[in-house]
Amino acid sequence: MNIRQIVHDSDTVAGRLFDKVVLALILISLVSMSLGTLPLTPAWSAGLEVLESVIVLLFVAEYILRIVTADKWWRYAGSFYGLVDLIALLPFLLMLVATGADLRAARALRMLRIIRLFKVAQYSKAVARLGKAVHYAREEALVFLFATLVLLYVAAMGIYHFEHEAQPDKFESVFHSLWWAVVTLTTVGYGDAYPITVGGRVFTFLILLLGMGIVSVPAGLIASGLSRAIEDERKAKAEADGSE
Amino acid sequence: MNIRQIVHDSDTVAGRLFDKVVLALILISLVSMSLGTLPLTPAWSAGLEVLESVIVLLFVAEYILRIVTADKWWRYAGSFYGLVDLIALLPFLLMLVATGADLRAARALRMLRIIRLFKVAQYSKAVARLGKAVHYAREEALVFLFATLVLLYVAAMGIYHFEHEAQPDKFESVFHSLWWAVVTLTTVGYGDAYPITVGGRVFTFLILLLGMGIVSVPAGLIASGLSRAIEDERKAKAEADGSE
Amino acid sequence: MNIRQIVHDSDTVAGRLFDKVVLALILISLVSMSLGTLPLTPAWSAGLEVLESVIVLLFVAEYILRIVTADKWWRYAGSFYGLVDLIALLPFLLMLVATGADLRAARALRMLRIIRLFKVAQYSKAVARLGKAVHYAREEALVFLFATLVLLYVAAMGIYHFEHEAQPDKFESVFHSLWWAVVTLTTVGYGDAYPITVGGRVFTFLILLLGMGIVSVPAGLIASGLSRAIEDERKAKAEADGSE
Amino acid sequence: MNIRQIVHDSDTVAGRLFDKVVLALILISLVSMSLGTLPLTPAWSAGLEVLESVIVLLFVAEYILRIVTADKWWRYAGSFYGLVDLIALLPFLLMLVATGADLRAARALRMLRIIRLFKVAQYSKAVARLGKAVHYAREEALVFLFATLVLLYVAAMGIYHFEHEAQPDKFESVFHSLWWAVVTLTTVGYGDAYPITVGGRVFTFLILLLGMGIVSVPAGLIASGLSRAIEDERKAKAEADGSE
Repeated sequence: MNIRQIVHDSDTVAGRLFDKVVLALILISLVSMSLGTLPLTPAWSAGLEVLESVIVLLFVAEYILRIVTADKWWRYAGSFYGLVDLIALLPFLLMLVATGADLRAARALRMLRIIRLFKVAQYSKAVARLGKAVHYAREEALVFLFATLVLLYVAAMGIYHFEHEAQPDKFESVFHSLWWAVVTLTTVGYGDAYPITVGGRVFTFLILLLGMGIVSVPAGLIASGLSRAIEDERKAKAEADGSE
Repeated sequence: MNIRQIVHDSDTVAGRLFDKVVLALILISLVSMSLGTLPLTPAWSAGLEVLESVIVLLFVAEYILRIVTADKWWRYAGSFYGLVDLIALLPFLLMLVATGADLRAARALRMLRIIRLFKVAQYSKAVARLGKAVHYAREEALVFLFATLVLLYVAAMGIYHFEHEAQPDKFESVFHSLWWAVVTLTTVGYGDAYPITVGGRVFTFLILLLGMGIVSVPAGLIASGLSRAIEDERKAKAEADGSE
Repeated sequence: MNIRQIVHDSDTVAGRLFDKVVLALILISLVSMSLGTLPLTPAWSAGLEVLESVIVLLFVAEYILRIVTADKWWRYAGSFYGLVDLIALLPFLLMLVATGADLRAARALRMLRIIRLFKVAQYSKAVARLGKAVHYAREEALVFLFATLVLLYVAAMGIYHFEHEAQPDKFESVFHSLWWAVVTLTTVGYGDAYPITVGGRVFTFLILLLGMGIVSVPAGLIASGLSRAIEDERKAKAEADGSE
Repeated sequence: MNIRQIVHDSDTVAGRLFDKVVLALILISLVSMSLGTLPLTPAWSAGLEVLESVIVLLFVAEYILRIVTADKWWRYAGSFYGLVDLIALLPFLLMLVATGADLRAARALRMLRIIRLFKVAQYSKAVARLGKAVHYAREEALVFLFATLVLLYVAAMGIYHFEHEAQPDKFESVFHSLWWAVVTLTTVGYGDAYPITVGGRVFTFLILLLGMGIVSVPAGLIASGLSRAIEDERKAKAEADGSE
């Protein structure tokens, strides 16, 4: 029972310490993965490899511990974080099974370990409130996501029509134009492709006028909803304090 | 009466299925139009052409069905979506009438089919709430739209004054400068034209300071209004549940 | 008395017509000024010149009419729009006085006529509500304007420190670096100057993290305030309708 | 007691004058530091050096005065602004102790004087309200800051995976890719590095879709919270006026 509390809950000193150790391991793993992409001396490379092996083994140990100590193991294994934990370990487990596998493929699979990052979110309590705010605005957010997709498609079709003949290499097809639409409507604007015809520029202006009022609304919705949730909680607390 | 419900309403199983089939056809049509802009083998091109012909015929059938089953056919034909449906079919109908017409013109007319996309919005209910939020803020949105246009004009005139002599090719006239103004005030910033004189840069700074507070306000207005509408609905529902 | 109502108020049919004529004249004047920057044939140039002369004379007539018909002429002449009207006419009046003046200087003075644009705002009623929303948030807006200026200065000083030695031509002095700071913190990002050293890039990241939370807050403040004002007005109206 | 009021408070005429003199000195110091980065004639350089020496001596005098006149000197010395004042003077004090020190290091230390800027904020009262709004939203802001960091890391790892082979010079390692992630997710988009593979572009699209809803939320939160605080204060004032 005590071990269960340490591993699964975070309302005891030992439980919080356990969480912090796991969090530290994840961060070390991320840093070591990043360092691995730098051009390193053989000694450093070998050191990093050892470090990563140790961390992966510790994560396997953590996963087994969570399964063993859970009240009902299938509830943890089937939960979002349980699945994420398992997927994050998949590349290692696959390498155990297929030892002679292609190294390049193994490297690509290591990418999956990024999902470990989301385990960090597990330890934050404010995330719950955020989740509620997103939940309330989910229908509107979906409408705007859909409107964004429609707008991107319309923008790509339109700019293809206006610019294809003038710049056949940059606006080769609607799919190439979609890249321009994404870069423009998010206002990133790398400058690798932009309209040069009068028609294309007027069209870009109209699309941007519409896009400004669509693309940034979901973020505003979440911000506004969160702000209201915080205020309500604060008022409820003030009333509770006043009636005591 | 049963067919009318299936075609025009979406509160029966068959009605919802009908809506989903139409929606799927629209998506297939969009994908096929996009694929048509890629460099394809003759076999693929021919296949796509057949696919598009089938879809257009199905849309014609859908349009006739909607007209025939409507209580009062002129109410559907005159409604926003009725008109959109008709305009989307225009290029096909025109090709039927003028069989020997110029192919290039026909290609341009096919662009109109994009309007079909807006038929998709027909099937979403959250759009209504959004429409209400936009309606409440429409006067302010118009003021900001107007302010944006004024700001764009002032920016174009000003930058023309500062940069025309230094960069006569990029700031050739006020109309060329307008393109710079659009790209800059929406913060896209492709980098195809930017001020190089001290006066032009100070002017750009002042215009951006003003622009940041104007261009993104309408999106904020809609987000804030929507957030309030969602909250009001939630509270009304909570009260209704409480009084039962 | 009747003429006073037509010129100064817009609650009669004739008054609204007068406003619309003035507005149309302003728009024609703006278009003609823009066309004047294009390379034109002599005939077109001469035509535009005549058109502009006529419009300026009409504006002079309008100004005199407003002065003459005002209850107390100094109240109009001293009001914001009265001063704007006068300043907009200054280039023309100066050309009357100094007939042999340098043409180039005269061209520069014509820029002042842009101020006429703000006369258009005179005719909108929703502007008042917006003014109130800005008024309520003016202290916070000033704080953020100040924070933006501080951030721009800090960014310019910092990037100068990091990049001056690596790119002495692009980050020549703090003043050249300020241009980079403006382009980066407004997220325009033309790409004419960007950090290439590790220190400069880390510094840019930190400045952007701070900047995202400062530069776009004023627009959010105005949007949120406006949304509340609209809602309050709507509820007040609903209550008034209910109690009738 | 009178001197204490002048130096530490700003509710007397003399106190406000003292504050304004200090503020003016800070601004003069900032301008002089900026001018020092321009290529100047020896006479100007010498003049600026004298000016800076005078200002630094005045700041030392101000610091001593604040310490001497404070009720409890350690409370001022230990306060945020007391520490900032001291750190801003450190380069000067260090130069007094180590007269023969390396000039280059001294120049780098002068950068610290930028912190003086934050003393300006000391004189604004609206900052307090802002601080409260930030305080209420601090948990959510932290969650979003964390989410931003996670997103940046995921973006860098992903784009490295997709683009490293196609553009090994621009996406050399995860750390080089992080720079791309910062420039893209803040929508600055300099255009010095951008994906060219199909996989990299689709990944960028998905990351931007997620990023738009994360990076700009904190600013919206602060704006929304501030707007509510302003409204509450206004209503409280209106009620207080009404009950008089």
